[in-house]
Amino acid sequence: MKTFQTMSSLYAPTLKEDPADADLASHRLLLRAGMIRKTAAGLYSYLPLAWRSLEKIEDIIRDEMDTHGAQEVLLPILTPAELWEESGRYDAYGPELMRLSDRHDRDFVLGPTHEETMTDLVRGELRSYKQLPVNLYQIQQKYRDELRPRFGLMRGREFIMKDGYSFDADAEGMQRSFDTMYDAYSGVCDRCGIKALPVAADSGQIGGSTSIEFMALAEAGEAALVYCPDCGYAADEEAATVVISVEDGPETHDHELECVETPGVHTIAELAGLFDVPEAACRKAVALVDGEGRPVVCIVPGDHELNEVKASHAFGGYHLMSDEELESFGLFKGCIGPVGLPEGVSCVCDVSLRGSLSWLVGANRPESHYLGARPGRDFEPDAWEDLASAKASDACPVCGKPLAAARGIEMGQIFQLGDKYSRSMGATFLDRDGKERYFQMGCYGIGVTRTLAAVVEQCHDDSGIVWPVSVAPFEVEVVALDTADDLVWPAAQQVADQLVEAGVQVLLDDRKERPGVKFNDADLLGLPYQVILGKKAVAKGMCEVKDRATGERREVAIDEVVVEVGSEVIARRR
Amino acid sequence: MKTFQTMSSLYAPTLKEDPADADLASHRLLLRAGMIRKTAAGLYSYLPLAWRSLEKIEDIIRDEMDTHGAQEVLLPILTPAELWEESGRYDAYGPELMRLSDRHDRDFVLGPTHEETMTDLVRGELRSYKQLPVNLYQIQQKYRDELRPRFGLMRGREFIMKDGYSFDADAEGMQRSFDTMYDAYSGVCDRCGIKALPVAADSGQIGGSTSIEFMALAEAGEAALVYCPDCGYAADEEAATVVISVEDGPETHDHELECVETPGVHTIAELAGLFDVPEAACRKAVALVDGEGRPVVCIVPGDHELNEVKASHAFGGYHLMSDEELESFGLFKGCIGPVGLPEGVSCVCDVSLRGSLSWLVGANRPESHYLGARPGRDFEPDAWEDLASAKASDACPVCGKPLAAARGIEMGQIFQLGDKYSRSMGATFLDRDGKERYFQMGCYGIGVTRTLAAVVEQCHDDSGIVWPVSVAPFEVEVVALDTADDLVWPAAQQVADQLVEAGVQVLLDDRKERPGVKFNDADLLGLPYQVILGKKAVAKGMCEVKDRATGERREVAIDEVVVEVGSEVIARRR
Repeated sequence: MKTFQTMSSLYAPTLKEDPADADLASHRLLLRAGMIRKTAAGLYSYLPLAWRSLEKIEDIIRDEMDTHGAQEVLLPILTPAELWEESGRYDAYGPELMRLSDRHDRDFVLGPTHEETMTDLVRGELRSYKQLPVNLYQIQQKYRDELRPRFGLMRGREFIMKDGYSFDADAEGMQRSFDTMYDAYSGVCDRCGIKALPVAADSGQIGGSTSIEFMALAEAGEAALVYCPDCGYAADEEAATVVISVEDGPETHDHELECVETPGVHTIAELAGLFDVPEAACRKAVALVDGEGRPVVCIVPGDHELNEVKASHAFGGYHLMSDEELESFGLFKGCIGPVGLPEGVSCVCDVSLRGSLSWLVGANRPESHYLGARPGRDFEPDAWEDLASAKASDACPVCGKPLAAARGIEMGQIFQLGDKYSRSMGATFLDRDGKERYFQMGCYGIGVTRTLAAVVEQCHDDSGIVWPVSVAPFEVEVVALDTADDLVWPAAQQVADQLVEAGVQVLLDDRKERPGVKFNDADLLGLPYQVILGKKAVAKGMCEVKDRATGERREVAIDEVVVEVGSEVIARRR
Repeated sequence: MKTFQTMSSLYAPTLKEDPADADLASHRLLLRAGMIRKTAAGLYSYLPLAWRSLEKIEDIIRDEMDTHGAQEVLLPILTPAELWEESGRYDAYGPELMRLSDRHDRDFVLGPTHEETMTDLVRGELRSYKQLPVNLYQIQQKYRDELRPRFGLMRGREFIMKDGYSFDADAEGMQRSFDTMYDAYSGVCDRCGIKALPVAADSGQIGGSTSIEFMALAEAGEAALVYCPDCGYAADEEAATVVISVEDGPETHDHELECVETPGVHTIAELAGLFDVPEAACRKAVALVDGEGRPVVCIVPGDHELNEVKASHAFGGYHLMSDEELESFGLFKGCIGPVGLPEGVSCVCDVSLRGSLSWLVGANRPESHYLGARPGRDFEPDAWEDLASAKASDACPVCGKPLAAARGIEMGQIFQLGDKYSRSMGATFLDRDGKERYFQMGCYGIGVTRTLAAVVEQCHDDSGIVWPVSVAPFEVEVVALDTADDLVWPAAQQVADQLVEAGVQVLLDDRKERPGVKFNDADLLGLPYQVILGKKAVAKGMCEVKDRATGERREVAIDEVVVEVGSEVIARRR
């Protein structure tokens, strides 16, 4: 028999003060509301209230996945290293992969993702094109040994994910599976009450060609993104192929290269100030050592940054040069440029600069810059690459209008993998003509615990959390103010009982606390509706209903409150 | 919108032949029915059908736990080694504990159980006796690095468990929590359709004083147990404190010790045969080296075995002597006894032998035994201990009647821990008088994946699985025999649709296979009801309903089958 939960027996130790080291609203509020606790860096325990919300998020995900034709499975977290050696990721993945050995010294990883295990599961058993497509998903703990776990649930080392994998016979099938999952993911965001933007994204360590991230828009989001308010184009800063409008640097009067002393100039701002030009008219040089140990100088427009992910694609596991490395390669900090680079240092320039014929750049001598440097005449770049991060006011690659910038939380990401894993792991099927072919795969991840944090990040105010009905731990809090009163306590129990009978999930604050404490806790915990029963009102047969989201309060007859609040709750479920 | 699942799109690759290395029925049938697949030794993937059953088992467990006052949480699997160092288990647990380090070389374990993490969670936050009792549980993957993973889901290295922990103010409270969980566990077994016996058990590596195991009775069970058909006493062989009736050995005519040559006697059976006495009148000697490296000879009644767990309690991490060790300590294989043991070898005898004054034992010389050896006169045991495994026909310690033997699968176990963890980890609360006291804890585990295996172990026949309705992957299989027929296919779809509308979970075999294949697969998969639609019957408006458990088949009008089967299914849910 379902019943209401009393606050006095609920394990939800609330905190009166903001905890230290919790900068993000979601981190702070989930701790304060007694929903999560830290066990160790990046490892959290989910207390009963958080678990209730997580279960609802999981159920929404399950429903969307099942409705869109996927089937739930569960694969081992502990993953034999051999599978990752087959795909080549065992060596490639780096220190974020948690590794361990069993008692027989066999190597394993704690799965951060399951492309290998899933491919291994179906190979040999999914044999005919007639059985395709197949789309399998699971919900389980994943592992990523973050260098600096932070932001509460946003960037933990153990977290809950839904990961799914589709197997198709050809690229068109893969596209259909991908599109279906796009719809499922849009549905998940919507039903969890999340305002999300699907953006073009980089495929990172998962690989494949096409990828879309579902970004929950939030000031506190780690991801920078750009979008076109006009045509709807949107992309992660790392993946955006924007059109950067570049300005030429100041010309010299004879249009020749000229070296100018620039003492005290250390930044692009100072350089632009000295010559009274916009930063876009300057060129920024970034010196790095590429994955093979070779020195490279990158040049990007003065008002843009070198993008880490784009640089990784171009230069492998690169690092920025230290002061010692700059010196050893004969480079002068603050005055690096493409002209007259020391022997052995190559020069790669951002593609956006290709059309510009007059560059204001460092002169590779102390305290000096060149005016009017011209590619093809004064220097020859070794390559032109897409290196610069997109930013607001760059032009939309689709319609050319200026882009806007936003920040987001990466809630989910969907990938077209093609045959990256099926080929390396030899997973084939027989096509219509009886020929062996590699599966065309897709993979689809959504962070369950991160979604919980994203909801709180988007849905809170100064007093606490403001849960959407669909993922609230309970739907209504019945606040009994004077629990010792002969009328209040029976009325509160009766309202709670009747709401439960009507199918509503109810938390009853039965504690012997002052009204102020109860009101504060109710706002902090943030259930969508509060039904408040005080001595005076109950004596008149009335209670107060507070809508947590709007703050609106209204008097309702106790006799009517169950029907009125019950029907509102049910209407606001998704 | 809920709908039926078609077999053609279900990922359930069935096997026609029995897989190799799968001796246990549950292992064999879950593999054959396409429900599980092995990823590596002791690591299994759960395919859609198995996942559906696991979800139902989890839901039954959740419902019983919640109804009995427990609250669900989720703790990290990755557990900091420091917590296990506090309790002392980090060193004590042995090679079954999976250990790993993070990128900063901090040590972790993959939790096999969570007493430490749970105690750490509440200490400092559960401060007053007024907040007690608290009972928290979780469902998640657990890890045990088995030396030889085997028996499919029975003894894996990663498995799903529900583990719960109660915190009480005193021993009476702990007893109440324990009794409540006893009821919850009985409910789980019953609702999952498991015939289980709660038996007194050893507390093993968890610790504490009192423990009860819930044994699913099964021939293939790893655990040996004894029970009293008369009074209901039941215990694991390891924990049973039975009354063993011992017989004296043959007396010599002068009642003195006499050495007899016994060439060719190597076993107790041969010794008993030689003197024409029952085995119970002989004494069995087992030579071992205890945890500190000291040689010990154990003496137990000739018709009983030395129990490993009892021996562990008495001798720590002991091992049986090898032939080389026997020789090095001056012992003669097959002729070891308590009289005249070599210097430095101690002798420990089973308590049941205390009253016997004439022992037939090895003489510690080649091919010789003593008759009429008397403790106190001819030898002095260093200790009397409870060492022998219980067996059928031993006397019930409660009522004295003869016990019966059975085998079982350890589905769950509940423990009274007392203050073992709260004391070692300093977890206290303030009692009514404002004094600091240690929590009295209980812990409660139930194997979710093992329960799935136990259900199949108890519920199968030669043709396949025979699911109880409560945990069946689907409740009804609609078998469309002639899918190309103009009448059969629409009728099958309609029956499936209407059953789903009636709230029944339906699998529809829509494959273009021969009837024989479909019948075999339906029996193998073992859904509780089969609704079979063939050409001839459908033409007459009829179909056939088969009850998988009884094998009974009956003709039912298509118009009536939904109401009839639907109501039976709903009645048989628990």
